[in-house]
Amino acid sequence: MPSLPPVLETLIMELTRLPSIGRKSAQRLAFHLLRADAAQALRLADAIRDLKQKLRLCKTCFNVAQEEECTVCRDPRRDRGVLCVVEQPIDVMQFEAADVHRGLYHVLHGTLSPIRGITAEDLKVAELEVRLDGPEAPKEVILATNPSVDGDVTATYLAQRIEARGIAVTRLGTGVPVGGALEYIDAVTLRKAFEGRRGM
Amino acid sequence: MPSLPPVLETLIMELTRLPSIGRKSAQRLAFHLLRADAAQALRLADAIRDLKQKLRLCKTCFNVAQEEECTVCRDPRRDRGVLCVVEQPIDVMQFEAADVHRGLYHVLHGTLSPIRGITAEDLKVAELEVRLDGPEAPKEVILATNPSVDGDVTATYLAQRIEARGIAVTRLGTGVPVGGALEYIDAVTLRKAFEGRRGM
Repeated sequence: MPSLPPVLETLIMELTRLPSIGRKSAQRLAFHLLRADAAQALRLADAIRDLKQKLRLCKTCFNVAQEEECTVCRDPRRDRGVLCVVEQPIDVMQFEAADVHRGLYHVLHGTLSPIRGITAEDLKVAELEVRLDGPEAPKEVILATNPSVDGDVTATYLAQRIEARGIAVTRLGTGVPVGGALEYIDAVTLRKAFEGRRGM
Repeated sequence: MPSLPPVLETLIMELTRLPSIGRKSAQRLAFHLLRADAAQALRLADAIRDLKQKLRLCKTCFNVAQEEECTVCRDPRRDRGVLCVVEQPIDVMQFEAADVHRGLYHVLHGTLSPIRGITAEDLKVAELEVRLDGPEAPKEVILATNPSVDGDVTATYLAQRIEARGIAVTRLGTGVPVGGALEYIDAVTLRKAFEGRRGM
């Protein structure tokens, strides 16, 4: 496309790097920003810049935070006896949006993966163990890694280390999602749902 | 969502203003930028900023440009005898990508719209007439506004003024898009395709 000015081409290229944004969507977004008023576009540019410059990880749970500790860890009303271990900060957001967990979190920032060569040293596992051994040790740890191969491997690995400390360990239930149809569910999920069936 | 740091919430809100990006997509994009390395995120922020600060409109055809004139107008190989009138700069890009038009463009930046109160004074119509009356007047003007009510109204309005100058006027063909199926085409398009049928 020789007729596209370089600044426009650069923006389209950078937008294409985002997940689920192809060339066509990137073009549409770029031309939208072109028509949008300058203030709106600059607010977006500043918001991206601020994200990288002002956001850091909570020193306790490694969730995203603007202060030394995240809003969850600083909240005195949270139940310090229950710790929910997740893979990513976005998972904390999902739990908070569902308003289901009243305890604290610990964000691993990934999963173990023998294939990709990711070991416990690459994750916030040592930091988790410090918490388990510390004065605010929880009574129960909920392993909420994703129900994937790597998520299961990570949960199994952590479960051993947590149980060895005499702390209760649970894992998120797996099954048919609410609103999901059996017709479209994969066989592995269906088997898990069958095995995990409960009395009514 | 009380647990989301303000800089993250701000970014999600700004992303939601973009077309076809809802809350869920905005969250996914924001958390992707969070995980992405800082250089990539800052390149995107800079690209948005540059777009608004370095891009302007070509003084001749009102396409996007980084210089006084756009790359099409500056290209000496383009056929100055054929002028293609479009609604938006993105339409120029579509024509250039299709590599179908060897002449110049004129970007109206909108369409006439009696309902929304948009008149010829709000568009680059006077600027088009200056070109039609100037030393580089084209021999043919192709009206490539969209096949919508407003696009058709605009084409009809312009056709009269161009023909009055003894310049040939054509309109983009309307019909079934290539790869389209009659089964899914609307009645108006089908009628236009029928009326516009050609010998084989």
